[in-house]
Amino acid sequence: MEPHIAPVELAKAYRLLNHGPTVLVSARHGGVDNVMAAAWACALDFSPPKVTVVLDKAAQTRALVENSGRFVLQVPNAAQLDLVHAVGTHSLADDPDKLARFGVELFAADGFDAPLVAGCSAWLACRLIPEPHNQDAYDLFIGEVVGAWADTRVFRDGHWQFEDAGPRWRSLHYIAGGQFYAIGESLQARGVS
Amino acid sequence: MEPHIAPVELAKAYRLLNHGPTVLVSARHGGVDNVMAAAWACALDFSPPKVTVVLDKAAQTRALVENSGRFVLQVPNAAQLDLVHAVGTHSLADDPDKLARFGVELFAADGFDAPLVAGCSAWLACRLIPEPHNQDAYDLFIGEVVGAWADTRVFRDGHWQFEDAGPRWRSLHYIAGGQFYAIGESLQARGVS
Repeated sequence: MEPHIAPVELAKAYRLLNHGPTVLVSARHGGVDNVMAAAWACALDFSPPKVTVVLDKAAQTRALVENSGRFVLQVPNAAQLDLVHAVGTHSLADDPDKLARFGVELFAADGFDAPLVAGCSAWLACRLIPEPHNQDAYDLFIGEVVGAWADTRVFRDGHWQFEDAGPRWRSLHYIAGGQFYAIGESLQARGVS
Repeated sequence: MEPHIAPVELAKAYRLLNHGPTVLVSARHGGVDNVMAAAWACALDFSPPKVTVVLDKAAQTRALVENSGRFVLQVPNAAQLDLVHAVGTHSLADDPDKLARFGVELFAADGFDAPLVAGCSAWLACRLIPEPHNQDAYDLFIGEVVGAWADTRVFRDGHWQFEDAGPRWRSLHYIAGGQFYAIGESLQARGVS
């Protein structure tokens, strides 16, 4: 792995998603890799950490997840704005060269057979917890996080460091029509006992 | 309702949650009102709009949702930072005067018997879609959005207007330990055809 990438303690993996970023979902099956964008991903539990993600029936990545039982959620950043929008709006079904065309570089995590997207800020390797009713009725997939990593230039000591990391590292929060918001300033609530 | 509050077209209600804000969850049953904070809420479908929210078994609001079959997700803002943290860290079980103590003011939406929290930026009135397995196994609740409203000072014409609304209107995105991020600047992806 790239020298800036470090493991994140599983008990703190929820923090990678807690602020609601748009994610990239990647998966591999039968020699096919794919990556899509998903705004509808969410933490579901602390320990063991679990996540939810909505994968439309039209998404080619969905079949890769169903068939392999594995996926990766990764947190992209402002430097990847156009890449995130492109992989979110182009299907592998229509555009078999999609990943190369949009400059998506993949790398591997030891012992986990799904591709990770280079240049992101954080990665959560997930094992699908099959829930056929949720998948069929709601397009809702549940995963257990079995490995987590982050780029220490933007997440270290169990916390995001957006304040100090520079604008290219801000997480992306999709609305519609190609418009995103970057995450903004840190605010500390006063404790009330 | 307050004159700045306007209905949001149900087909665009997902946009109120799409950027992953921490929400307030409110519910009413048997003469009891409660409000809690939840970072784990997410859009689930466009039309009819649906949402997911994780409600821990220890949360008093959970029983109100289960017993009434209704809840409201509302999007609070930076002006409510301390209120959001306070209702998220104090339980009605230990602190029966919680809402008054933290300055939570409630109001009503015609025809929907659950309390709405004043001063928020947006509100989604939801009918619980009972899914006992999800609720028991994962603390995961699914709702259909049956009404949506927003404060036109920060959401109008189907879009958030954070850029022009001033810092007090920024949505809140919780991490841990009382630390939140406010939503930040708008970024427009270049379309790739």
